[in-house]
Order: sequence, then structure tokens, then C-alpha cells
Amino acid sequence: MSITPDTRVDLDRFWSTIQASAEIGKGRPGGLSRLTLSDEDRTMRDLFCDWCKEAGLTVEIDAAGNIFGRRDGTDNSLPPILMGSHLDTQINGGRFDGIAGVLAGLEVIRCLNEIGHTTKRPIVVVDWTNEEGARFSPPMVASGCFVGKYDIDWVHDRIGDDGTRFGDELQRIGYKGDLPCKAGEIDAYFELHIEQGPILDAEKREVGIVTGSYSVRGMRASFAGQTSHTGPTPMDLRKNALAAGARWLTAVDDIGWDFAVHDGKATAARLTAWPNKPGILSDTAEAVCDVRHSDTITTRAMAEKMRRALFESAARCGCEATIEDEWEWGGDIFDQELIDGVRAQAVRMNYNWRDIQSQAGHDAYFLATHCPTTMIFAPCKNGITHNNEENCDPEDFVAALNIMLHAVVERADR
Amino acid sequence: MSITPDTRVDLDRFWSTIQASAEIGKGRPGGLSRLTLSDEDRTMRDLFCDWCKEAGLTVEIDAAGNIFGRRDGTDNSLPPILMGSHLDTQINGGRFDGIAGVLAGLEVIRCLNEIGHTTKRPIVVVDWTNEEGARFSPPMVASGCFVGKYDIDWVHDRIGDDGTRFGDELQRIGYKGDLPCKAGEIDAYFELHIEQGPILDAEKREVGIVTGSYSVRGMRASFAGQTSHTGPTPMDLRKNALAAGARWLTAVDDIGWDFAVHDGKATAARLTAWPNKPGILSDTAEAVCDVRHSDTITTRAMAEKMRRALFESAARCGCEATIEDEWEWGGDIFDQELIDGVRAQAVRMNYNWRDIQSQAGHDAYFLATHCPTTMIFAPCKNGITHNNEENCDPEDFVAALNIMLHAVVERADR
Repeated sequence: MSITPDTRVDLDRFWSTIQASAEIGKGRPGGLSRLTLSDEDRTMRDLFCDWCKEAGLTVEIDAAGNIFGRRDGTDNSLPPILMGSHLDTQINGGRFDGIAGVLAGLEVIRCLNEIGHTTKRPIVVVDWTNEEGARFSPPMVASGCFVGKYDIDWVHDRIGDDGTRFGDELQRIGYKGDLPCKAGEIDAYFELHIEQGPILDAEKREVGIVTGSYSVRGMRASFAGQTSHTGPTPMDLRKNALAAGARWLTAVDDIGWDFAVHDGKATAARLTAWPNKPGILSDTAEAVCDVRHSDTITTRAMAEKMRRALFESAARCGCEATIEDEWEWGGDIFDQELIDGVRAQAVRMNYNWRDIQSQAGHDAYFLATHCPTTMIFAPCKNGITHNNEENCDPEDFVAALNIMLHAVVERADR
Repeated sequence: MSITPDTRVDLDRFWSTIQASAEIGKGRPGGLSRLTLSDEDRTMRDLFCDWCKEAGLTVEIDAAGNIFGRRDGTDNSLPPILMGSHLDTQINGGRFDGIAGVLAGLEVIRCLNEIGHTTKRPIVVVDWTNEEGARFSPPMVASGCFVGKYDIDWVHDRIGDDGTRFGDELQRIGYKGDLPCKAGEIDAYFELHIEQGPILDAEKREVGIVTGSYSVRGMRASFAGQTSHTGPTPMDLRKNALAAGARWLTAVDDIGWDFAVHDGKATAARLTAWPNKPGILSDTAEAVCDVRHSDTITTRAMAEKMRRALFESAARCGCEATIEDEWEWGGDIFDQELIDGVRAQAVRMNYNWRDIQSQAGHDAYFLATHCPTTMIFAPCKNGITHNNEENCDPEDFVAALNIMLHAVVERADR
């Protein structure tokens, strides 16, 4: 048997996996709080591995905890097609962000199993570790390591804000695999994801053909000052690291507003300090900020302003600033041939589609530095995400799933 | 036997109590981290109670955990003289802040015991609970309750930043006393304290006669926003509570600089947020700030600016701000007769003294709303405090201790 133009995925089967996932690591009502490398993440990974094995896939884990479920092709000497996303969530996360992409890959494979279609090239479904960065900074660290952006030892040494070490937690949950975290040759990477923005829902579109992404630059910085009494210490002798951090966050928020007219964004994401108590000035602080814009050159300008603001904020408060991490992703990074192939399927099946830019960070951005890559967006209600109110109906995935099925098979069989 | 003009305290005996205290709740090298109502605070309280009992005092604990060690006078129908301060410290605190004042009161009593002098009025040494506010906000909450500023149930319901409840922790360490936390008639209150500023040390003065205090106004405020993705959420739809809090802290720090030329100060003391993680906007934040100035009217103006900045900062980030607590203390609050009596002793014993204003917050400020009150300052090295490098030599306390001894006895015997 083989695929025909009329072949469609089994929406109920896909939705049942979404519902099973929604039971693991529940957060606020309707949402998930399934932080990477937590016990709940392990439970979800175990279930995903079981599903892969039931589908006849060869399951392999790499040193960063990335899970690969491989389906052989008729010519396994050819580079594989990858489909994937992530199963971890934000602390106040939803049931679809990332999860839908991994389970869509699984559904494509189950569909091919059902109709008995073996592709020419192998097909692999992937769960990337720690896409969210909600526990360990930076985000997307494991797909970054996979494509050679980060060294595996550096990844293992990341310290979470609960004081745990990435490598230790990976070992603890039993997902520190034997496979080196290093990409071989890959024919193409497809990532289905919810839009995480309001455009498709507002325009009642069934699917978004992702043509590129906002360019993002982020930074984690520390501030060093001195504890002292909040009373008698004159302003010019103060070294208040908390105030320095607050100044940086304020400056970054201002940068966002300066560029908002062309839809630029800047985020004051995180600030911690010690002792962070009344009556005493804090001697250490740490902060995470990022800037993003549809235009890469503009993002660079925003990032330079963010960097200057960092050192100005520290100096204003008598503190020293250090950039601990920096990251960047996005731009016009997706493969035109893949984009055209995806769009052609949307046209052929007569879905109500539009071209769209991604604005969030995705593992696809790192994969795009290594192999032809593209993304497909499903709509989500009001664009609400990273919130327990993130929501989709099963029907929101019909177009994206079927487009991915046919685009992947077309690519894998060529 | 009775006191003579040449009677002096036993400096070694006083210093031995400082050293014993310095062993309980050690922090960074040379410092203490003895947070209020902690196990270490209990150990110190137990030792202090033992010392009081050994000195023949009647020990009573009130409902806020304040400890009173009472020495009878010859006429116990007369209102007593109180001497006190606090035994709790900041998280990165020193060995002298507060502690010296409580142990100075004990030393005065031991000295009177030694020479067999019974004063006409009773004398009481006091340890006030939670002066620092380093665990439960606001600071000086138990002396405030004592003078009727705060209701005892409200005090018990304060939640620490470790999530514990003041009343529960008080019960846990066994210091929720039977005595109502309510001041009776008091003849006078004396508080010896280290200066916590650089003036006495820089001028090589042996003692500071405290004539009044900086006026302080503080505020704890919360911000309510909405979690959302840091990527696609447009600036004008964001409700980032962390950014709102950072804006407020920045504005308050600016207020400090605006008034710094006349030695005004403003402090961005504390900021927490949730989830406070990369990739997601925070939906809640809480912050503590204060302003202080030698002039009460100016402090009021600074506080009004602080209040306006709060609501402006929240509005700028699409959040709601709520003032959770407010406090004020200080001003020209000390008793002129007591100040003159203290200064007269400094002159008589020929110490190198100067008049000085207090800039930190002290329990004496609340006592001053209830009874004649004054303070005596001992010098500390370079004015460093709320830091493990806070330091004093035994000799730094000679003048303050002997002045307090004679000023207290003169007052108690009149």
C-alpha cells in the first residue's frame, strides 16, 4: 500500500495523544507545568518512548536527552527527514505549545504505518530537551548542542534556578543517553507548532506557512555590589545590585516601546537578587532580557542598546556588570524549497492558509543552521500562550497535520 | 551600697556577652545571620533569658515575643525605665547592630547588682522582636505593636518571604508569651546602638548624643499582570508585572538621587516576581521601597513621589498596583530632657562627644510615640553595617555604656 493524494491523518488518534499528555504535570486549571527534566517530564518521555516503540520505531537518546524515534526507509543510506518539537512546558504553560509538534510527528508515522507506506528515506520523530529554558537557561539548549552551537559539557553544567545541574537532572530521570549529541547529515527538518500569536485566529485561517522568523537576541547578566544599611549609606556610596538590575530591566522595556511601532519587542524576563530584603542593600543580582524584531539589522541595533544599558545601569548604581550568557536566533533562515513544498500542499488541499513569520523561539531555528528546515503553524485561540488559558480545538490541527503528512512524504520519497 | 560619680561598667563582662552572642547564628566570616524567630534566634533568646534570671530579673514574654527582664525598684508603684534594642540580625548582619543595645541594658543591671544599688523606679531590659524586618515585613513590628501602632492579630498574620506566618513561627520557637503586647505607663526609654554611619569614626568621637532622627516612609506594593509569551505578545498587550516592579524600583532610586544633595536617600530594597523566568511574562510581583530625609516635610514630598511612581510604573506596563503596607517613623521625636541628661553625663565624664541624627530605623522611634525616649550611639568602623564586615572594638562602647549607666540611674532615682 502507499499514500494517495486523499490520505488524511486520524484526527481523533492525534487528539487522544494530546489529551494523554494533558494529564501529565498539570498546572493551573487547563494548563501544564511540566518543567524540563522534572519527574513529570520523565513520565511524559516514558509515555512518548512507549508510543514510539508501539509504532515500530527505533528509539535512541543522545547525551543531551534528545529522544529520536526512527522509522526505516527503503534506502537507509540516505539522510533522514526529521519532524519534532518539545514536550517540556513553561511553569504556567499550555497543553499544545511544543507538544503538538512532537505528537504530530508521531501521528504522521502512525498514519504511514496504517496505510503501509514505507518512504524512501528514513523518517525520525524528535523530542528536543529544554526548549523552554524555563528551568535552565538558555532555551533550546539541546537542539543548539545537536547542531554544534553549544558544547555538551557546557550544556551539562547549566545550573537551574532551583540550584540543580542539567547533567545531574538528566542522569536522575534516566535520559542521559549514549548517543553523542551531534547531528549527522539530515535531509530536512519539519516542525509543526501552534502560532503563539493572534493572527491566524483573528483572520480565521486554518494554517500558517512559516516563511521566516523574527530575529532574537538575549542576554543573561549579573551585577555585583555590596550589602549595606539602607539608612545611613549615602546615595553615592551605595552599591545596590538590585537597583542596578531594575534599571536594566526598565531600560530594556523602554527599548521595546521605542521599537513597538514596527512591532519590535523587548522583554524584561527575570530578575533575582540577594539578600533582596528590606533594610539592606543587595550585593548580587542576575537578570535575563531579550529583544526581537522582524528585521535582523534592527534586532542588532536593539541588542546594542540593551548591552549599553546593562553597563550604564550597573555604573549608575556603583556595581559591576558581567554578561554571563548571550544567545541569538531567527532571521530568514528557512529553506525556500521546503516552504514552497508546504505551501503547495496547502493550495492543493484547499486550506485557508497565509504566509506568516514566527515570533517565538523554536528548535527549528537551530536546525535551520544545519539542514533545510521549515515550520507549519496551527492557529490557537486569541494567540494566548505561555498561560494555562492557551487553547485549541482538534479542528485547529487538521490543515497543519495533513500538510505535514504530505510534505514530509513527498520529501522523503523523492 | 550605691552608685557614685566614679562608678563604671565592667567592659570585659559586657564584651564577653557580645562574644557569646557572636557564636549564635554565624553568617559570612565575622558576621551573623540570625533572622527573627529562627532556631538561632531562639537559642539567643534562651541565653538572654538565662542571663536575665541569673541577674535576678523577672522575665516576661508578651504576645509579640518581646522579652522583658525587670529589676524591682524601691517604689514599684512608679512607672519603670526601659532599656533595650533587638537580638535579631539581617541575613548578612553584624555582631553589634541591636545586640549591643540589649546587652548594654543587661550590663547596666549587672553593674547595679555588683555595687548593690537599688534604684527608686524599676528598670527593665528589653529585646524587641523582628526589628530588622529581614524575614517579616514591616520592620520594628513588635515595638510598633507594643505602643499601639499595629494590632497583635495583624502582626501574627505577617507572612515571611519563606512563606511562614509570624504567629506560627513565634509559637514554634516557644516565644508567644502570655503578656498582652501593650505598653503600660513608662517613665523613659533608653536605647544604646552603634551609629551605623561613618561620622563618629571619621571624627574620632567616642560617643554620639542622638538629638533626633531622619524621617522615613516605606511601602510594600504588589503588581498584578498576566503571563504571556515573550515573543509574539505586542508591547501594548503585555502585562509584565516584573517590568512594572523594575520601573518602580528605578523611579525610587531616581528619587534618592534627586534629593541626595541634601543627604536624602531612597532605597529599592526588594523585588520578587512569578514566574520570573525567561520566555514568559510574569503575572505577579511584589516590591519594598523607602525614602528618608532629615527633614520630615521633605520626606513627605519624597513619599508622595514614590507613591505616584508606583501607579505610573504599573500603568506603563498594563498592570494593577496595590499598596499592601505602609510605614513611617522618625523626625524630632526624642525627649529634650532625656537628651540633655545624656549629654550632661558625656560632659561630666569628659568624653569626646557630638550631637548626631540617627538615620536608620530603630525601635526607639515607636517607643518615642509613647514615652520620653532617647538614644546613645557608639562608633563603628567606617560606618559599615548590615554587612559581615561591621566591626567595633570593646573601647568603642566605653563612653556609651557609662553614659547610659549614669543617665538611667539618675532618671530612675529622681
